[in-house]
Amino acid sequence: MNPLIFQTDFGVQDGAVSAMYGVAYTVCPGLRVFDLTHEIEPYDIWDASYRLIQAVAYWPEGTVFVSVVDPGVGSTRRSIVAKTQSGQYIVTPDNGTLTHIKRRVGITAARIIDETVNRRSGSEESYTFHGRDVYAYTGARLAAGIIDFSQVGPEVEPDSIVELPVVAPTLSEDRVCGTVDVLDVRFGSLWTNIPKEMFKKLGFKVGDRVEVTIENDTRVLYRNVMTYAHSFAEVRVGEPLVYINSLDCMAVAINQGSFARAYNIGTGNSWKISISPVRW
Amino acid sequence: MNPLIFQTDFGVQDGAVSAMYGVAYTVCPGLRVFDLTHEIEPYDIWDASYRLIQAVAYWPEGTVFVSVVDPGVGSTRRSIVAKTQSGQYIVTPDNGTLTHIKRRVGITAARIIDETVNRRSGSEESYTFHGRDVYAYTGARLAAGIIDFSQVGPEVEPDSIVELPVVAPTLSEDRVCGTVDVLDVRFGSLWTNIPKEMFKKLGFKVGDRVEVTIENDTRVLYRNVMTYAHSFAEVRVGEPLVYINSLDCMAVAINQGSFARAYNIGTGNSWKISISPVRW
Amino acid sequence: MNPLIFQTDFGVQDGAVSAMYGVAYTVCPGLRVFDLTHEIEPYDIWDASYRLIQAVAYWPEGTVFVSVVDPGVGSTRRSIVAKTQSGQYIVTPDNGTLTHIKRRVGITAARIIDETVNRRSGSEESYTFHGRDVYAYTGARLAAGIIDFSQVGPEVEPDSIVELPVVAPTLSEDRVCGTVDVLDVRFGSLWTNIPKEMFKKLGFKVGDRVEVTIENDTRVLYRNVMTYAHSFAEVRVGEPLVYINSLDCMAVAINQGSFARAYNIGTGNSWKISISPVRW
Repeated sequence: MNPLIFQTDFGVQDGAVSAMYGVAYTVCPGLRVFDLTHEIEPYDIWDASYRLIQAVAYWPEGTVFVSVVDPGVGSTRRSIVAKTQSGQYIVTPDNGTLTHIKRRVGITAARIIDETVNRRSGSEESYTFHGRDVYAYTGARLAAGIIDFSQVGPEVEPDSIVELPVVAPTLSEDRVCGTVDVLDVRFGSLWTNIPKEMFKKLGFKVGDRVEVTIENDTRVLYRNVMTYAHSFAEVRVGEPLVYINSLDCMAVAINQGSFARAYNIGTGNSWKISISPVRW
Repeated sequence: MNPLIFQTDFGVQDGAVSAMYGVAYTVCPGLRVFDLTHEIEPYDIWDASYRLIQAVAYWPEGTVFVSVVDPGVGSTRRSIVAKTQSGQYIVTPDNGTLTHIKRRVGITAARIIDETVNRRSGSEESYTFHGRDVYAYTGARLAAGIIDFSQVGPEVEPDSIVELPVVAPTLSEDRVCGTVDVLDVRFGSLWTNIPKEMFKKLGFKVGDRVEVTIENDTRVLYRNVMTYAHSFAEVRVGEPLVYINSLDCMAVAINQGSFARAYNIGTGNSWKISISPVRW
Repeated sequence: MNPLIFQTDFGVQDGAVSAMYGVAYTVCPGLRVFDLTHEIEPYDIWDASYRLIQAVAYWPEGTVFVSVVDPGVGSTRRSIVAKTQSGQYIVTPDNGTLTHIKRRVGITAARIIDETVNRRSGSEESYTFHGRDVYAYTGARLAAGIIDFSQVGPEVEPDSIVELPVVAPTLSEDRVCGTVDVLDVRFGSLWTNIPKEMFKKLGFKVGDRVEVTIENDTRVLYRNVMTYAHSFAEVRVGEPLVYINSLDCMAVAINQGSFARAYNIGTGNSWKISISPVRW
């Protein structure tokens, strides 16, 4: 028996998540079910994709994730189960939710859910809650070992899995450039898509001063010098810093303040960030 | 051993819910405990009642729900355990929390909690946290099989269980009328008390255009035509629709928008909604 | 095997808490893991300290709490495991998080976490997520019995554990004085540091009228008469009351209203409250 992890944009104010838990419990009372988050902003597939890479690596091979952020529920978007390079399964609408897993972890196999067999009986007339009727049900049966991966449905090419547009980070002689992918929400830190290896190629050492520039489509919102530090406590309270986050990418923060709120920084492909040596 | 499900209006910012979990764990370490929600608005009995019907049906016979939304804690309101038609138990103050379960699922038996035996020992001087001292404790003992239903306390008539005022939906020749019972909070959809069977008696088919009118005590807030669809993806992004929700009642939404916020729609018996054929 | 309880200021919007759960699950799949809260305000050590005393007493001896509110992550602050008078363990940065447990429950032993052995392998290059790499990992191993308390690391004097400044409540002939320690957030009640025993020494009986004064550094915000009641339901809706809260300290509330919001009351050592007999 493997653990089952739920992620949705449903919130926990109503009974929807509990209904999914009930379906899983009914499939197999001994199943261990956990939450990733249910606070994904409604319809925010990008965020769902990102939160998966933040958590998947810490769960063992065989763990089954069910991610339901599904603006296209009831449309022709495919429902799939993907198997990651590291051996976990992800049950999800194929709408871009697997973007980061596909690029950073790797997907070795994928199957379309055959709803003629993998759907809660009696739910055929329900069109708006596939999270409960298809995804939680199939995820629970897969985690409990009632079906194996081959019984999910017909195999499809991992290459065919839908990806959201991503801008790759770039390295030039005097700077590394990327995008602000996501916020560490409660702390207001900016998490970029710049891997630490790329950053280190510029020869930076902990304690160095670096110049950080942040701009969106229309203007530069920040250009200033800060310290590259191991962690917050190495700079003063209220001082900005560049550091390597828990996903091994570069991040920018204010120690005990909110960088995002201080400078009105948002996230997404239009939010560019570059880091370079200080030239004067 | 049966699962135990908690619902409260305590939120999860402090230690109250964890204290309830601790009491349940101390009663029986092997007990499986889950959450329905702890985000019921403080004192909102109606919402508590509604969230129960949203979740109860998906849990097996024997499951024990503990619902603590209790503005009258310390008053003479009764503390009861109700047994549903489908065989689940609900432990709760008898203050209207069982309104929807009683009307839509049915209650076959009820007992008053005898606090001389069904109360955490040492808690006799505590007057403000029956959720921990009486309800979680009794629910855990019932779920664990330490007591059976007959040991809860003296039996009472299910008919005597307190109900909040409810306005029944009505069908006439050219329209179906009801109330906006609750919001699908995060998505801003309106969930009405109009059962799909009543709606279908007007002969509507998926794809039909219908006229929806919403009014409160003082004025009409919305009167317009929209599509009756299986699910959101059948209309354009930003377009309104009527659909059958996951509780088999009629609902109104904007695909990927918030209907409630768009037109300032609230919930409760004063919020009337009617659906009729388009006449021109 | 003992239960493991997590408390953080991470929120549950992202994957951080799930990563901690994954680490615990990987240490021992059979471990029972629960939440205290993840909604501590970022960096609010006082609140973390307070929520611990609200929950610890309801969990059995041997329970392991992991509390991660850690503004000094990466600094030289110690990482410790404390053993309470009642036999629970608390894994936490030694930054004041144990203030209330030390004073009200008592700490009988403490050990510094030896990170050369008690740290997730492969995490040596991560400097910003000790919650996952050190605290969750060590807590899980201690709860699962893989290490015992003596294997945590070198013993230190419980007296050396860091405490936040606390103002003790005082009793004089005609009044009891204390501070507003914390809010019962959702209900807006004020929880003070005045123990019920001290209050009762003034001879008050339930039903008595008492005078309550609340002031901060600069001015008196409230001075009025209210009833000392067992619980909310003994006063009218909208009426204020003094009562004994679930931690056996004095509290002030408005029945079904928010006292804190009504009078703009905050919390901390500068928020003084006194209760005295009514003199006219």
